[in-house]
Amino acid sequence: MARAGARSKIFALILCLFVTGNECSNGRKNVLIIIADDAGFEMGAYGNKICQTPNIDALARDSLIFNNAFTSVSSCSPSRAALLTGTPSHQNGMYGLHHSIHHFNSFDNITSLPNILRKHGVHTGIIGKKHVGPASVYKFDYEQTEENNHIDQVGRNITRVKLLARDFLAEAGSLDKPFFLYVSFHDPHRCGREPQYGTFCERFGSGQPGAGVIPDWTPWYYQWDEVAVPYHVQDTEAARRDLAAMYTTMSRLDQGVGLVLKELSAAGHADDTLVLLTSDNGIPFPAGRTNMYDAGVREPLLVRAPGRRRGSTGALVSLLDVTPTVLDWFGLPHDQPESNEVDPDDRPKSFLHVLDKEPPASPLDAVFFSQTHHEVTMYYPMRAIRTRTHKLLHNLNYGMPFPIDQDLYVSPTFQDILNRTRAKQPLPWYKTLKEYYYRPQWELYDLRADPAETDNLHGKPGLEKLESGLRERLHRWQRSTRDPWLCAPGAVQTADVCRALDTHMSHFVPR
Amino acid sequence: MARAGARSKIFALILCLFVTGNECSNGRKNVLIIIADDAGFEMGAYGNKICQTPNIDALARDSLIFNNAFTSVSSCSPSRAALLTGTPSHQNGMYGLHHSIHHFNSFDNITSLPNILRKHGVHTGIIGKKHVGPASVYKFDYEQTEENNHIDQVGRNITRVKLLARDFLAEAGSLDKPFFLYVSFHDPHRCGREPQYGTFCERFGSGQPGAGVIPDWTPWYYQWDEVAVPYHVQDTEAARRDLAAMYTTMSRLDQGVGLVLKELSAAGHADDTLVLLTSDNGIPFPAGRTNMYDAGVREPLLVRAPGRRRGSTGALVSLLDVTPTVLDWFGLPHDQPESNEVDPDDRPKSFLHVLDKEPPASPLDAVFFSQTHHEVTMYYPMRAIRTRTHKLLHNLNYGMPFPIDQDLYVSPTFQDILNRTRAKQPLPWYKTLKEYYYRPQWELYDLRADPAETDNLHGKPGLEKLESGLRERLHRWQRSTRDPWLCAPGAVQTADVCRALDTHMSHFVPR
Repeated sequence: MARAGARSKIFALILCLFVTGNECSNGRKNVLIIIADDAGFEMGAYGNKICQTPNIDALARDSLIFNNAFTSVSSCSPSRAALLTGTPSHQNGMYGLHHSIHHFNSFDNITSLPNILRKHGVHTGIIGKKHVGPASVYKFDYEQTEENNHIDQVGRNITRVKLLARDFLAEAGSLDKPFFLYVSFHDPHRCGREPQYGTFCERFGSGQPGAGVIPDWTPWYYQWDEVAVPYHVQDTEAARRDLAAMYTTMSRLDQGVGLVLKELSAAGHADDTLVLLTSDNGIPFPAGRTNMYDAGVREPLLVRAPGRRRGSTGALVSLLDVTPTVLDWFGLPHDQPESNEVDPDDRPKSFLHVLDKEPPASPLDAVFFSQTHHEVTMYYPMRAIRTRTHKLLHNLNYGMPFPIDQDLYVSPTFQDILNRTRAKQPLPWYKTLKEYYYRPQWELYDLRADPAETDNLHGKPGLEKLESGLRERLHRWQRSTRDPWLCAPGAVQTADVCRALDTHMSHFVPR
Repeated sequence: MARAGARSKIFALILCLFVTGNECSNGRKNVLIIIADDAGFEMGAYGNKICQTPNIDALARDSLIFNNAFTSVSSCSPSRAALLTGTPSHQNGMYGLHHSIHHFNSFDNITSLPNILRKHGVHTGIIGKKHVGPASVYKFDYEQTEENNHIDQVGRNITRVKLLARDFLAEAGSLDKPFFLYVSFHDPHRCGREPQYGTFCERFGSGQPGAGVIPDWTPWYYQWDEVAVPYHVQDTEAARRDLAAMYTTMSRLDQGVGLVLKELSAAGHADDTLVLLTSDNGIPFPAGRTNMYDAGVREPLLVRAPGRRRGSTGALVSLLDVTPTVLDWFGLPHDQPESNEVDPDDRPKSFLHVLDKEPPASPLDAVFFSQTHHEVTMYYPMRAIRTRTHKLLHNLNYGMPFPIDQDLYVSPTFQDILNRTRAKQPLPWYKTLKEYYYRPQWELYDLRADPAETDNLHGKPGLEKLESGLRERLHRWQRSTRDPWLCAPGAVQTADVCRALDTHMSHFVPR
């Protein structure tokens, strides 16, 4: 046993050298990604003064806080597939949700971050919500997910998550390997099928009658009249109560984050581990999740790298950049997928350098978005480009109303919008329901003057050059990432060439 | 070896008894399904006097000719998945094409005909185009498909198909098992990626320079001015030349059918094998494939059952009935998938009894249709019910133009429609391009008075009861087959209940 242990240590050292290059002598390098489910900016670290998140805030104080981080797609499975592969949803095949009747899967030949890392001797683990497939594409050495547990037990029971993290870290330690741990909380996702726990499962494990106890969780409760209502949610009691429930659920996420970080420290890896905390998509409120508006795609991103920069950054980054960043951290190359055209500016790339120095802001900075389905019945493909100042959004199925997911539909907030609209009662919201449902084919926003994205500048005189420039760049990105929707709508893609439908038919009049 | 052989024969006899019940003494029972790819009624057996199909016609003379057989979905993979499972596309998960970027797959828990039969000791084989997945759901003992061959070699090279059929039949013989052989020709599908062979690959193996030789094929050629133009194709030289090319390809299919049947006879199974010949969807012309109009869903169906009825039948059947029919032939039960509601009239069921006696025509007879995608970018869900006299068709994405598949788009026929429309030249077609693209949410046709389905009776006074009856029955079928699109558009499906979107918003005005 002793000899085997010694041999494995030597082997691990060689591996370590191989994996981390010349920094190996400074110790092992590991990665911990903590991803929340539908979390937004209800955190002290991002300026929310009501929702209490002391653990996340503590992490933020040791981290670089990204103020311009964006998911490439505002839907759970596609967002996670994009994060774990560095490819947009249309390129990896995760066109919508993975589970049940939705049944979307990445292509069998897609290479994921855990698969690359495992091949290079990194011990990989996932705890919590996986929600991507097929299994062969997203394979972790250690898997405790909804596939072999109840999702609430690995995603919301933070005591269980803590113990699983301990277990994984012990395993990595005994193997003497660098590790990649992906902890995927199910909070603050809405409760869906278990409404007895409240709309945000905020009573699950709270110690209330019939709700069970999560020993490590002290729930925080909020009054509906004290919450901070985001601009894209109506300011009504119903919506405020909904937000207050989400705040309570955020306290479970927050304390879970604290527990996992404590396990990391206890295992001796506080100083050799890159920690990222982010979320998959916007909050499950109108204009949030499933939308390409900023409320749907802007994400919290905290990056704690031992010995690197803290504070905050305005660097414009995409969650597509996470895969190259993690590979960069491990000293591994990021093999880009085959492309017809290469535009280095528009490719996913490591943002590790931002941890050393604030990059100069350039008008050329851009992130890209690609969403097609959420639920399989929710076909509403959108493609978008966002610079520091503008967003151009292309709604491909604009002839139909924007689809509402089940989860949002039954929520107190959306029901409140429906009821008030139906009853012609005052609706203190930034849009009408009709505007929300019916969207034009193109939307162009000046994000400095109009951060809420309500004043569509598409086709406005004086902006033609700006708009056509954005459109061409978006189109180029779609082409280089082999977007099957490159030519849609109004044209058919044949052998990588868009052939326009009959021209006098191709300008479809919406409604 | 001798003893092992004797033992296996006894085993096979027991199996045979088990599988075929009391008819076992009359000899083994086998099944041969021959499925064409995009074939319509260009056959002498179905009254086409120009397109020569002597082999299919000979089969027809020994068969019962079905004049009212319909696929449940007008797209290759979904149609095959429906045929091989007895479940509509929305129930088995094959929402669109299986291959490449489209990437649709049936659910892992779906039970297919070959999997059931294999379990019951039937030797199963597929030769030619498979186009369904995952592999575990559609598993044959013997597989020579596009997955391990070039599709043209197993789908169009009829000499190769002949030899493979011989190989399979010998294998089944040596195993002494009843067999299920599914021969899936790629003809007369358009040529797609190999335009050097002509629009219908009609030159592939023809002996023309550079086209290779299929020893067993004698191509038949046609003049463009002699073809029979179906009502749904424009009568122009371009379209006629396109049809003439398809006719030539039909001669390869026809001779392939002859070769396979000869192999069956040579193996001594002409008299103990149920033979079915059909096609997956309508011809690849406007209003054909990808459409729910009769030109897209009505299929040839020849059924040759030794000692049973010949001639023709008006029985209304669906290709969803093939699975229960084959199981019935083998004396096996058809376990229906779980359903919320059971409506025996509307379930797939064996049509074996039609081979004994013409069933009485009932106004209650109906077939159902469910289509969602073809290519992954072609989202145009349609649900329909067809009785002997009427069709009610629900277009769910009616706010957008009907999508044109690549294959049709580049065809001489569709280009001719585009060019003539663009140039405002005469277009001797039964519709305008605008009518073809833009379809209302509901279409109701009286098929006796209007077999071409051009006079939409939706909402017409006097037909309210008829229409609401059809709508309710369609809805019931969708519910019982757990259609995810049950509530679309205009409502959200939550826990098997449709919740209407805000009522004053739910009547979306198309254009």
